[in-house]
Amino acid sequence: MSLLPPQIQKTIEEFTKLPGIGPKSAERLTFHLLRSSKASPEGLGKALIELKSDIRYCNVCQMVTLLERCSICESAARDQGTILVVENPLEVIAFEKTGFKGVYHVLHGVLSPIDGMGPEQLKLKELVIRAKKGGVTEVIIATNPDVEGEATANYLRMQLKEYVPSITRLAHGLPMGADIEFADQVTLREALSGRRSL
Amino acid sequence: MSLLPPQIQKTIEEFTKLPGIGPKSAERLTFHLLRSSKASPEGLGKALIELKSDIRYCNVCQMVTLLERCSICESAARDQGTILVVENPLEVIAFEKTGFKGVYHVLHGVLSPIDGMGPEQLKLKELVIRAKKGGVTEVIIATNPDVEGEATANYLRMQLKEYVPSITRLAHGLPMGADIEFADQVTLREALSGRRSL
Repeated sequence: MSLLPPQIQKTIEEFTKLPGIGPKSAERLTFHLLRSSKASPEGLGKALIELKSDIRYCNVCQMVTLLERCSICESAARDQGTILVVENPLEVIAFEKTGFKGVYHVLHGVLSPIDGMGPEQLKLKELVIRAKKGGVTEVIIATNPDVEGEATANYLRMQLKEYVPSITRLAHGLPMGADIEFADQVTLREALSGRRSL
Repeated sequence: MSLLPPQIQKTIEEFTKLPGIGPKSAERLTFHLLRSSKASPEGLGKALIELKSDIRYCNVCQMVTLLERCSICESAARDQGTILVVENPLEVIAFEKTGFKGVYHVLHGVLSPIDGMGPEQLKLKELVIRAKKGGVTEVIIATNPDVEGEATANYLRMQLKEYVPSITRLAHGLPMGADIEFADQVTLREALSGRRSL
């Protein structure tokens, strides 16, 4: 027989299913919620139960939204001919802070056969349909600079090249504030080959 | 206007209230729950809403339980005269794994004036009542070896000394598997002064 009441055990178990939360953190979070005056289990619980309600993907760019089309795709102020392709919705939020004036396409993942992610699992078809319709002058591929991201970028280039005049990839190089001494050789090589005249 | 639907923002906000979860982790957890097949927002949400239902503190030891008295306080196999005093319910679980055969008392915190934790906020009164009733031969104080834990241990000793013949504190010293080279000086001093003959 376990010492902890079943609803406490159940909550610990559900927290453990989340990425980066082990059994000890799950226990700590659960007991924090039991005692805390700031965080309440009911508040988080209610938010979670309502999380998926009415959430849908924008018909055009596949961003999470409540409407048929998201506000970016509806906006006349945005350049609908420049599409920035990202892996997930949070990256849209990140790029919005840069002042980017084009539109987005969210893939909801990257090609990764090991995780069972093939072209059918991603929102790739929808991007090709957008490109085929015409009017797209540039597709900027902003998948992460890792093996899966590079493979996805190459696959996208193959699929899009006959419909889109310009397909680009984000620049690779040293991040701002980096210390060259500690940069890895791949990054340094990219930074060298991508050098620009001052 | 924010880009993310309100229920997603609300979930991120509620996650951020938890200890050790910043805005980035909260976003990651929320989007994981939106997509994951293993973890579901409804499962965690339901568990959280039911978390506090029927949860009460044992009349005797203040452990979380569903009954008036917890199974340890009810057990005839336990030595009801030896009370191990801990800060929180998870420590009861930890000591149960050691095969300890006495009973517990959960303080639900430690004395910490900065956090507004005085003797009234803790389950101290209940411990003194248990001691006054008689039959308690030893109180083992197992608060954490830090400033608040030591202060709480001293306060407890003052409150209990006229009712309990033996008041003890957990041994301090090197943890098993420790590397003496990297041990701090306070721990080494405690390990030296608490040395035992072989």
